[in-house]
Amino acid sequence: MNTEQYISMPKEALLKEQTALQQKYNAYQAQKLNLNMARGKPGPEQLELSMPMLNILHGKSELYAANGDDCRNYGLLEGLPEMRQFFGDLLGVDACDVIVGGNSSLNMMFDTVDAGMHYGFSNCKPWAAQGKLKFLCPCPGYDRHFGLTEYFGIEMIIIPMTEQGPDMDMVEQLVSSDTSVKAIWCVPKYSNPQGITYSDEVVRRFATLKPAAKDFKILWDNAYCVHDISDTPDNLLNLMKECKKQGSDDLPIIFTSTSKITFPGAGVAAMAGSKNTLATIRKKLALQTIGYDKINQLRHLLFLKDLNGVTKIMEQHKALIRPKFDIVLNTLKQELTSAGFAHWTNPQGGYFVSVNVMEGCAKRVVTLCKEAGVTLTDAGATYPYGKDPNDCNIRIAPTFPSIEELKQAMDIFCIAAKLAALEHLLTK
Amino acid sequence: MNTEQYISMPKEALLKEQTALQQKYNAYQAQKLNLNMARGKPGPEQLELSMPMLNILHGKSELYAANGDDCRNYGLLEGLPEMRQFFGDLLGVDACDVIVGGNSSLNMMFDTVDAGMHYGFSNCKPWAAQGKLKFLCPCPGYDRHFGLTEYFGIEMIIIPMTEQGPDMDMVEQLVSSDTSVKAIWCVPKYSNPQGITYSDEVVRRFATLKPAAKDFKILWDNAYCVHDISDTPDNLLNLMKECKKQGSDDLPIIFTSTSKITFPGAGVAAMAGSKNTLATIRKKLALQTIGYDKINQLRHLLFLKDLNGVTKIMEQHKALIRPKFDIVLNTLKQELTSAGFAHWTNPQGGYFVSVNVMEGCAKRVVTLCKEAGVTLTDAGATYPYGKDPNDCNIRIAPTFPSIEELKQAMDIFCIAAKLAALEHLLTK
Repeated sequence: MNTEQYISMPKEALLKEQTALQQKYNAYQAQKLNLNMARGKPGPEQLELSMPMLNILHGKSELYAANGDDCRNYGLLEGLPEMRQFFGDLLGVDACDVIVGGNSSLNMMFDTVDAGMHYGFSNCKPWAAQGKLKFLCPCPGYDRHFGLTEYFGIEMIIIPMTEQGPDMDMVEQLVSSDTSVKAIWCVPKYSNPQGITYSDEVVRRFATLKPAAKDFKILWDNAYCVHDISDTPDNLLNLMKECKKQGSDDLPIIFTSTSKITFPGAGVAAMAGSKNTLATIRKKLALQTIGYDKINQLRHLLFLKDLNGVTKIMEQHKALIRPKFDIVLNTLKQELTSAGFAHWTNPQGGYFVSVNVMEGCAKRVVTLCKEAGVTLTDAGATYPYGKDPNDCNIRIAPTFPSIEELKQAMDIFCIAAKLAALEHLLTK
Repeated sequence: MNTEQYISMPKEALLKEQTALQQKYNAYQAQKLNLNMARGKPGPEQLELSMPMLNILHGKSELYAANGDDCRNYGLLEGLPEMRQFFGDLLGVDACDVIVGGNSSLNMMFDTVDAGMHYGFSNCKPWAAQGKLKFLCPCPGYDRHFGLTEYFGIEMIIIPMTEQGPDMDMVEQLVSSDTSVKAIWCVPKYSNPQGITYSDEVVRRFATLKPAAKDFKILWDNAYCVHDISDTPDNLLNLMKECKKQGSDDLPIIFTSTSKITFPGAGVAAMAGSKNTLATIRKKLALQTIGYDKINQLRHLLFLKDLNGVTKIMEQHKALIRPKFDIVLNTLKQELTSAGFAHWTNPQGGYFVSVNVMEGCAKRVVTLCKEAGVTLTDAGATYPYGKDPNDCNIRIAPTFPSIEELKQAMDIFCIAAKLAALEHLLTK
């Protein structure tokens, strides 16, 4: 095996390396595998953890909310009082600042941006009536944030990620100088895809932003708030508390869900914000639905109970997920370190590992993987409009495949990454 | 008791009647009652019918969709194949023309209008890019249809209802001549609030509409498709079949849900439309959610099974609801017939009785009821912008109160209706 950096190898050595790797690649291709590392999907063994929740409602007495309402009937548009408290505890905010939604936090984000477009925030004109709009997008980031922003015709501005979070110098400069900058998308803990947790300083700088636009919002998608995979988990400073200290509590709109605590697709989503913010959200909510599924909220309350209950099940998830992350990280280290062209993150939680392959090669790596039976997230997906300016970032989602599948898939990924790099160097 | 028509009574007799009724009213007011006939909410005894559904998922083997997908994980954006079939059977359309949603058909309607605004239908420009837009609103109608239409800034045009459905002469005239008329809201079976089922002729005239706007849509909210209360239920002609005969299957978009079959708020909603229509819907759907709650779809499939299962539970609902409708209709007949100023419908199904009190009196009746402890739907709610041009229509929802409560509430309603009429006549 090669132990030299590709960049410093002579052409002949590169060709030799290519031949050896091509043989391995062909052998995998002959196996006609069908492996998938594309989406942050829990593995089947993780789904087993929540099976007791399915039959947890035993009697009629359990079907009433804290306020006496029958959860089987219409009502309680903002969620059960005790479920608002549950999410308040999870997010470190007051229960009265929480609205509980349906099964999808993405849908709540979509509706939130729509409410901003239609009604506007903070007593400003509707976003839609203000001409050109811009959202800041720390990158690499979450493709679905970008997809919904594009739906609303909002221009996306790439903000580079550092190891501490978004480049705050750039964020502050843009936010404080441009009234058309209306929001920033953040996955502040175990970011998608890098697994970076914003540092205390970054969170404080968010709380002390002085936006040119009075209706600027921090869209704080705390999807992975309790999703540790390490015994030395990251800690995220509480943005809402910091904002309340600064009197800037109209800034953040916080989202989360139990999708990766209980069942993806059959979990419960929630959002939190200031009174002003939620007043705007409520106006739309009252027109678009009579209420969300309160029986599923009850199931979650009986099953998870409180933060202790969440901690317990997240420990079980960790035990199942961590070996998968180990395989990804160990394979990357073993196979790609010496060649020297690739860089990746070492997350303490979340659902992804972010790999930068050789610049200009990400699309080719994804294609090579696909042709050997391994589906990855599309190259470019971690950037607005699906366009990675350097064509180098690839998001790896290790949770869904089995351990055996993952070993094969990662082996193929590393071969593909090297083959693409060699092609690139040899055709220069 | 008075047995004359108010309109032909001399002033003295009216005053005497007023005094007698005011005494009764005062006696009720002294009881400080708290009764509610405002919303179409099933009664608690109806909710008991679906209790077995809560614990119906017993084993892992039941958690897979017909295509093999694990329903506990992400996926199947358009719903389980077998749930699409279930709703296809319920609505009389092909399973492939169905998209299964979350718990709220109202939310699907909201998203549908939004998709029309944003993407447009039938290869036309987005509705939002076409300037002034109008929706036709058969009235009295459903307040939430009007509320969401107002959200989108679409002008609402009142279409009078006849006993056969909307005034089709007026519908045809407007639809065929005005390209800004983009849709009509219909509750074609047991309409909200009148309980009118559109006649075969009306349905056929809908299928043969020749809209001036190529992107005109019939928004067919079939909320009460199986909700009979009579042993001689109405039959609604299948609009989609009629449209397919005419080659006009891009016209209808059909909505329904199990909210009043199983649990309101924890049911399953669905929509149906042509391939062209659903293509537009799908574009938005893919951006706003990763998928709806498939486990709840499974619960419904195991509990209701098929159309036979639906028929069985609807018979049980009927047995519980019908005595309540009988109280409403008998009280109206007994208390209001002779006074001659009120008119009401005699529905064979649905959730409401529509009462026209004396013109100019509906608001006063609602206020008088409120002050005697009976909450009704706001007067005007059955018209766009909450404005009943004749101030005479009131929607009565008999299902939620108990039999005893309903007797009192209807007694108070009739007293209030008469008092308001007397006030009106005496101050002329």
